[in-house]
Amino acid sequence: MSLLVTGSIGIDTIETPAGRRDDVIGGSAIYFSYAASFFTPVRLVGVVGDDAPAMLDKVFDGLDVDTSGLERREGSKTFRWHGSYVKDLNEAQSIETRLGVLAESAPIIPEKFTDSRYVFLANTHPALQEQLLGLIKRPKLVVADTMNLWISTERQALLQLLKRIDGLVLNDGEARLLTEERNLIVAAKQVLSYGPKFVVIKKGEHGCLLLTKGGEAFVLPAYPAERVIDPTGAGDSFAGGMMGYLATQGHFTPATVKRALAYGTCVASFTIADFSLGGLQATDRDQIDERWNAYKQAMSF
Amino acid sequence: MSLLVTGSIGIDTIETPAGRRDDVIGGSAIYFSYAASFFTPVRLVGVVGDDAPAMLDKVFDGLDVDTSGLERREGSKTFRWHGSYVKDLNEAQSIETRLGVLAESAPIIPEKFTDSRYVFLANTHPALQEQLLGLIKRPKLVVADTMNLWISTERQALLQLLKRIDGLVLNDGEARLLTEERNLIVAAKQVLSYGPKFVVIKKGEHGCLLLTKGGEAFVLPAYPAERVIDPTGAGDSFAGGMMGYLATQGHFTPATVKRALAYGTCVASFTIADFSLGGLQATDRDQIDERWNAYKQAMSF
Repeated sequence: MSLLVTGSIGIDTIETPAGRRDDVIGGSAIYFSYAASFFTPVRLVGVVGDDAPAMLDKVFDGLDVDTSGLERREGSKTFRWHGSYVKDLNEAQSIETRLGVLAESAPIIPEKFTDSRYVFLANTHPALQEQLLGLIKRPKLVVADTMNLWISTERQALLQLLKRIDGLVLNDGEARLLTEERNLIVAAKQVLSYGPKFVVIKKGEHGCLLLTKGGEAFVLPAYPAERVIDPTGAGDSFAGGMMGYLATQGHFTPATVKRALAYGTCVASFTIADFSLGGLQATDRDQIDERWNAYKQAMSF
Repeated sequence: MSLLVTGSIGIDTIETPAGRRDDVIGGSAIYFSYAASFFTPVRLVGVVGDDAPAMLDKVFDGLDVDTSGLERREGSKTFRWHGSYVKDLNEAQSIETRLGVLAESAPIIPEKFTDSRYVFLANTHPALQEQLLGLIKRPKLVVADTMNLWISTERQALLQLLKRIDGLVLNDGEARLLTEERNLIVAAKQVLSYGPKFVVIKKGEHGCLLLTKGGEAFVLPAYPAERVIDPTGAGDSFAGGMMGYLATQGHFTPATVKRALAYGTCVASFTIADFSLGGLQATDRDQIDERWNAYKQAMSF
């Protein structure tokens, strides 16, 4: 089924204990699209400046990602992020963020994309997320991500958005900031009271936690990784794997959602094995399925 | 099957965000014995001073714990620990530790206990752990715990012990200290290279990780707990549940060990729900099994 994603497309400079990469492809929508494309056709909506590298056009070559919603805006600058994981592999330290074109008007959603049934609103201003969502005619499943910045500065807009989405994906620090609750189960319940039918709290190397309004709780450890080269995009890849799988299922029983989270976990484990998109580029659906089965086996008792 | 535990018996003063308790029963061997007794008969070996509270004699009333290896030493003082979790529920801050009788000679293992097949050497000086182990005639499964203090000050004695045991249980900080490896999978492999057939790394609220020399890896999240009242004894209760279950099985297939870790996880989740032994005293094997089944169900996909 059609899966639409809107989010950031960026040029990253990344420092990790394993080394440094300058001016590599990044952004939430890029990681999400790549990860989801292992499962289902993806429709990408985003905007870059006229400084975007030519390689951006080739990133999705051979993949089922429709980039006709990717706007290259003349006179604008592409979003840039310089982050470091040298001190803590589990949490990026932002050295420099240049919003560039992300601080301007939203990208345009092509008319042919407005029939999308599955929608992922990757991290951006919550009012913009809501505006984009308003253009989709009859969505079946809408999930959003957010970040500390919007929780702190645009709380009302975010709470407004939460009333209109099915699921929220956020990390542990964000969940605590949003709810002012230290315990993540309590925090998750609080998030559900704001509107979403389910919430997924990502805990980095410690896995993830799902709570639903139906009272289902599900906890998953991360795939045990011996070498983490670059955690950038792990959360977006997780969301991409999860939504990509859900889009192929068409229903959201607890068992299906669990399998989706496990797929997200496995896809993210490939992302962190190399810089930028290297980890995802080096794998395929067969390898992902193989890891998923091994992970499922390792989790059963 | 007979399960022997040697370890500390103490009087704790505990501060957590939920309150404070003065002079309550504690110690690794106490928590371990209580937890393991839900599964199998336990033989407790430990030593207290003449100041030990009378209630110590009643702690195991009605439970299958043989306390004939509990020595009350005249003229000595019971081990005392004052800890606080006010800053961080996941890591205790030691305010005061008085070793007392723990700094003296080891407790005596009754002759009738020397045929024990299952042995848990709870945290104490590694040379003492090895000495106690030497008294057991024909152990089938020997697992030990340790702590930062011994890793830092008695490294050679600890490495010596590791050659003689089947399994080591330690927490993430201890694993990193012992191996000087930040990544826990790499650290676990390093521990295996020191001798044990398996290692369990406890990650507090983030669950646990098992690695075996056979190459099996298993990760389990903690039971999702909404209220943590007092984490004291969670690790010892985990080990008690794990060893107690293993002692009933008599074999150590990967599936059995996984089920044992899940039992440890569930028993520990009762421990943290109240101060001191309150959480364990308020539950029974039926409740533990019920939680185990719910946990297994929540983990399957």
